[in-house]
Amino acid sequence: MCLRTEDGEGAWWRLGVLARVNAPEDLKALSLAELEELAAELRDFIVNTVAHTGGHLAPNLGVVELTLALYRVFDFPRDKIIWDVGHQCYVHKIITGRKERFSTLRQLGGISGFPSREESPYDIFGTGHASTSISAALGLAKARDLAGDHYAVVAVIGDGALTGGMALEALNHAGHLQTDLIVVLNDNEMSISKNVGALANYLSRLRSDPAYRRLQKEFESLTSRLPGLGPRLRDFLSRLKGSVKYLVVPGMFFEELGFTYLGPVDGHHLPTLLHILERARALKGPVLVHVVTRKGKGYKPAEEDPDLYHGVGPFDPETGELHSSPLPTYTEIFGRTLVRLAEEDPRIVAITAAMPSGTGLKLFAQRFPHRFFDVGIAEQHAVTFAAGLAAGGYRPVVAIYSTFLQRAYDQIIHDVCLQRLPVVFALDRAGIVGEDGATHQGLFDLAYLRSIPHMVVMAPADENELQHMLKTALTYEGPIALRYPRGAGLGVALDADLRPLPIGQGVVLREGRDVTLIAIGNMVPRALKAAEELAAQGISAAVINARFVKPLDTELLLRYAKRTRWVVTIEEGVLAGGFGSAVAECLTSCGLGEVKITRLGIEDTFVEHGHPEELRQKYGLDVQGIVRAVLQSRPLLRLTSRKTL
Amino acid sequence: MCLRTEDGEGAWWRLGVLARVNAPEDLKALSLAELEELAAELRDFIVNTVAHTGGHLAPNLGVVELTLALYRVFDFPRDKIIWDVGHQCYVHKIITGRKERFSTLRQLGGISGFPSREESPYDIFGTGHASTSISAALGLAKARDLAGDHYAVVAVIGDGALTGGMALEALNHAGHLQTDLIVVLNDNEMSISKNVGALANYLSRLRSDPAYRRLQKEFESLTSRLPGLGPRLRDFLSRLKGSVKYLVVPGMFFEELGFTYLGPVDGHHLPTLLHILERARALKGPVLVHVVTRKGKGYKPAEEDPDLYHGVGPFDPETGELHSSPLPTYTEIFGRTLVRLAEEDPRIVAITAAMPSGTGLKLFAQRFPHRFFDVGIAEQHAVTFAAGLAAGGYRPVVAIYSTFLQRAYDQIIHDVCLQRLPVVFALDRAGIVGEDGATHQGLFDLAYLRSIPHMVVMAPADENELQHMLKTALTYEGPIALRYPRGAGLGVALDADLRPLPIGQGVVLREGRDVTLIAIGNMVPRALKAAEELAAQGISAAVINARFVKPLDTELLLRYAKRTRWVVTIEEGVLAGGFGSAVAECLTSCGLGEVKITRLGIEDTFVEHGHPEELRQKYGLDVQGIVRAVLQSRPLLRLTSRKTL
Repeated sequence: MCLRTEDGEGAWWRLGVLARVNAPEDLKALSLAELEELAAELRDFIVNTVAHTGGHLAPNLGVVELTLALYRVFDFPRDKIIWDVGHQCYVHKIITGRKERFSTLRQLGGISGFPSREESPYDIFGTGHASTSISAALGLAKARDLAGDHYAVVAVIGDGALTGGMALEALNHAGHLQTDLIVVLNDNEMSISKNVGALANYLSRLRSDPAYRRLQKEFESLTSRLPGLGPRLRDFLSRLKGSVKYLVVPGMFFEELGFTYLGPVDGHHLPTLLHILERARALKGPVLVHVVTRKGKGYKPAEEDPDLYHGVGPFDPETGELHSSPLPTYTEIFGRTLVRLAEEDPRIVAITAAMPSGTGLKLFAQRFPHRFFDVGIAEQHAVTFAAGLAAGGYRPVVAIYSTFLQRAYDQIIHDVCLQRLPVVFALDRAGIVGEDGATHQGLFDLAYLRSIPHMVVMAPADENELQHMLKTALTYEGPIALRYPRGAGLGVALDADLRPLPIGQGVVLREGRDVTLIAIGNMVPRALKAAEELAAQGISAAVINARFVKPLDTELLLRYAKRTRWVVTIEEGVLAGGFGSAVAECLTSCGLGEVKITRLGIEDTFVEHGHPEELRQKYGLDVQGIVRAVLQSRPLLRLTSRKTL
Repeated sequence: MCLRTEDGEGAWWRLGVLARVNAPEDLKALSLAELEELAAELRDFIVNTVAHTGGHLAPNLGVVELTLALYRVFDFPRDKIIWDVGHQCYVHKIITGRKERFSTLRQLGGISGFPSREESPYDIFGTGHASTSISAALGLAKARDLAGDHYAVVAVIGDGALTGGMALEALNHAGHLQTDLIVVLNDNEMSISKNVGALANYLSRLRSDPAYRRLQKEFESLTSRLPGLGPRLRDFLSRLKGSVKYLVVPGMFFEELGFTYLGPVDGHHLPTLLHILERARALKGPVLVHVVTRKGKGYKPAEEDPDLYHGVGPFDPETGELHSSPLPTYTEIFGRTLVRLAEEDPRIVAITAAMPSGTGLKLFAQRFPHRFFDVGIAEQHAVTFAAGLAAGGYRPVVAIYSTFLQRAYDQIIHDVCLQRLPVVFALDRAGIVGEDGATHQGLFDLAYLRSIPHMVVMAPADENELQHMLKTALTYEGPIALRYPRGAGLGVALDADLRPLPIGQGVVLREGRDVTLIAIGNMVPRALKAAEELAAQGISAAVINARFVKPLDTELLLRYAKRTRWVVTIEEGVLAGGFGSAVAECLTSCGLGEVKITRLGIEDTFVEHGHPEELRQKYGLDVQGIVRAVLQSRPLLRLTSRKTL
């Protein structure tokens, strides 16, 4: 491990080969030895930067040589490259003119951790969710064909993302269209955690078993050395040769789908990579290049625990030690509580789409291996599989990040809610997620879930309430979702006894005369603090923890609306159709439209990357923002309207 | 074609073998000859019923023998069967106690055209959208394993539905879990139309080329008859035999995924079917049984044009002549207009997910075969593929039924809207769809689309406006959706010149003092008629065609809200988060909350099957319902509030 730190004058990387690489064409002038030196420098550069900014460490360390080889062989941005999931694009960014800005990675106003069309012409297609790259690349390829152009289109996709249904849909279509398209399968035997599924087993056989090719060679040598064969045997062998593909081509799965399969090759050996990519470039039709890489390559802590170093916060680059939060996260509380509940109820089963650690299910998986299912990157299947388990009498908990559950919207409607099956949706990373940016914010869930009949939607104000809500969910006989934020809890005391909360009931946390702040989830403690500050400014604010977005506690809402004549809703989610919209629907439907409603949340925009608290500040969802909004929207005829009470 | 009509005393089918079949156990007593007679009777029964009720004719005629064989071999409902898509469940329904009620098929209050858990214990899992069956079956299978039980779980899936990503996700997971599961691949070379894609080509090779098996036989006979082989050749052949799977197993694709492949077999030959299903039942682990059927089998018009007879309205059972609407449908106007616009703009390309006829794109496909893409049943890929085409400079139009576009919710957000790519979404069958029922109603689109930033959402009031909206969409430089209803247009005159409508502007259709009816899409003409009836009752109603759900015409809305102090929103969609919710958001945000808002649409419920007009009546969205709702919600203090104007 060779780590260098910044010197007084500037970054160390101003001195090495990297110093000479400002654009892709600079790579073409380098010798192979220099490219290899560059690879080492890039690893140091990435480790040292991510140690400060946080980010996707292991995936990027795994594709250093692959990225350099791609840029050496292809002519981007005239040729096009799409990075599936996009969390492995750091080298790509560094060598396409973003080296100087790389220290701003994932910071508010800095460069994104994912490809972004707004950022560079080299980022031809933004990514962030898995399995989209082949579809987008095929679209670009057909656009090229229609325009009569001839550039190459390359999609780089991991073996994990390949199990996502839409990647397979795209392979099916690409194999059919037979246009020129290069799919680089970046096979590191992992998605975020260890990759699972039949396809993973298949790839593993491809990697480990050269028998196919040994057999092929023997077959050829044998037939050439046996001139004295009888006509019947010769005829047989001749026809056998027609089917010889089945013997000699290791990638039959891909060949059957119409792809030419090349590989597998060592993804850290530059000469081999350059050779196979040249071959791929020369071939017509869809080509799949199978490249075997190691996640975390070159940085020992990440090589040893690529799951832990997949995406990290700041850490010590010398030791790899992560700066962890002193408080337990929502994820941890969820994971622990689920295990506790599952001890009591053998019907509880848990499902993850390739994120046992991220969702906190690792503990459950260890304790109840037979009741735990990692379905791979396959959110659609995860939800309908859960519906099947529920139809079979079990109580499945589907733990998926809010942003990724969007993938299963139809399945939630069609397979779960329509049939009123008791599936629990645990939406982690809901609301503002932060540094991962627009593709990862979990801002739509309240809106898209509450419009589905039969669904119950709730959000805990703190990690203690999360415990009770999970208990509530597993006691309820129907579809139910709970969404909770990324990161550490508030450090509140955790009740020893878990109790189901009454469905559809909110809680009054503070009484007040002038205005009712009704907040959901992580906005509740902020609303309480805002109320304190408002009190100092002479405004008496009641605070309600709504707990449920659906069903709304209309009785409580109406009571306080009548009393204070002014309601402020606060949610970390989109305003269009969200929680505040539900409150507005309720008040206008009940003939209380004359009550003033102020809705705080995310206006009609995508939220970029940055620290969550910075983003909350920017979008007015911190305590000061709430106070400011309340003061600004204070009804003009305040005294008059209160007299009517 | 043997068609019988009802006699005076009762249905003809009270006389044949069918008369004796009231439950699955009755099948077990029948001889093979009687089963074959039963198959013929079932075909007649289905043709005669669907001729009156409308329904999915061709798919059901294709699985008569398959269904009988399944019920003969398995012990449902102890064993479980899931019908993918579900539109081929008629025989299943008839022989599981629903024969007498079969005449009520798809009628309000009658039996559903799809499996439904509420309807029968034989319908263990409801379906309606493609590609869900393997996931649900796998969930049931794991529930069985956890409970220590031993029943069989069978999923029947078409070759079309198999290309849907989630089916492939499920195959991947099932192959990994290796639990007992039987997937019957009902291969009729079609989805609704001719099936496309690399997997379809592969299945076609399997069907047509028995070479694999010939080779296998020869190989075995050869090695057994050649005792005098040299040691080297013998050794080679011996090792070859280890890899012999690659020679003799035709279903390598499925075998690689961990399935045992059986087939292909003739799906209309009962003895063969019974034999192969018995074999499948005896095997451990996941098994795929490849059954080749013919869509429309046994009814000549449907055999000859299975696409046309896939799903039909009433028809003449003698001739097959369809009772077609005299007025052009929205679908037709969309298809024609798109061709017209594409003549002028070579950047326009069109995409369907396996429904070239249903979406009206057939005309486009004929006129511009190179600019037309049928991606198979793969909505997710369809949308991201379109995004890729847009990133490549083209103007893709993705034509998908509203209910099926739910599958691509994440891709709309992530791949299209976030990048502001100019993709046009043409949502056919939006709103109340009717006889297909809860799984097919297009009621969520306004809610789920309007919460996505950068998206424009519109709905035409009639087929003439549809033309202009399509022009508008293809002129707009960003993501834009138009949704229109199933069925015939109003017969209005079609403007010769197409013009882009101003984005976000509604139109006043009628002035009025007392109330403003603001309607969207197909509710606009109904709102106009309601206004006429209200006038007769002394209420002066203004009528606005909103045209755009997003962006809302806030200026117009506020003007009329101030004027009439009472706004009634009318939409054919869910109320939670829908169009009326957008209006409520707007009015409350603008400090006009004291304006009374009455929102008409679908309350928080799934809408069942029935004739669309009956359903509109039931849910208060016909003219009378609108009039009634307006009268009932008339503000009490009407005169007082008007004085303030």
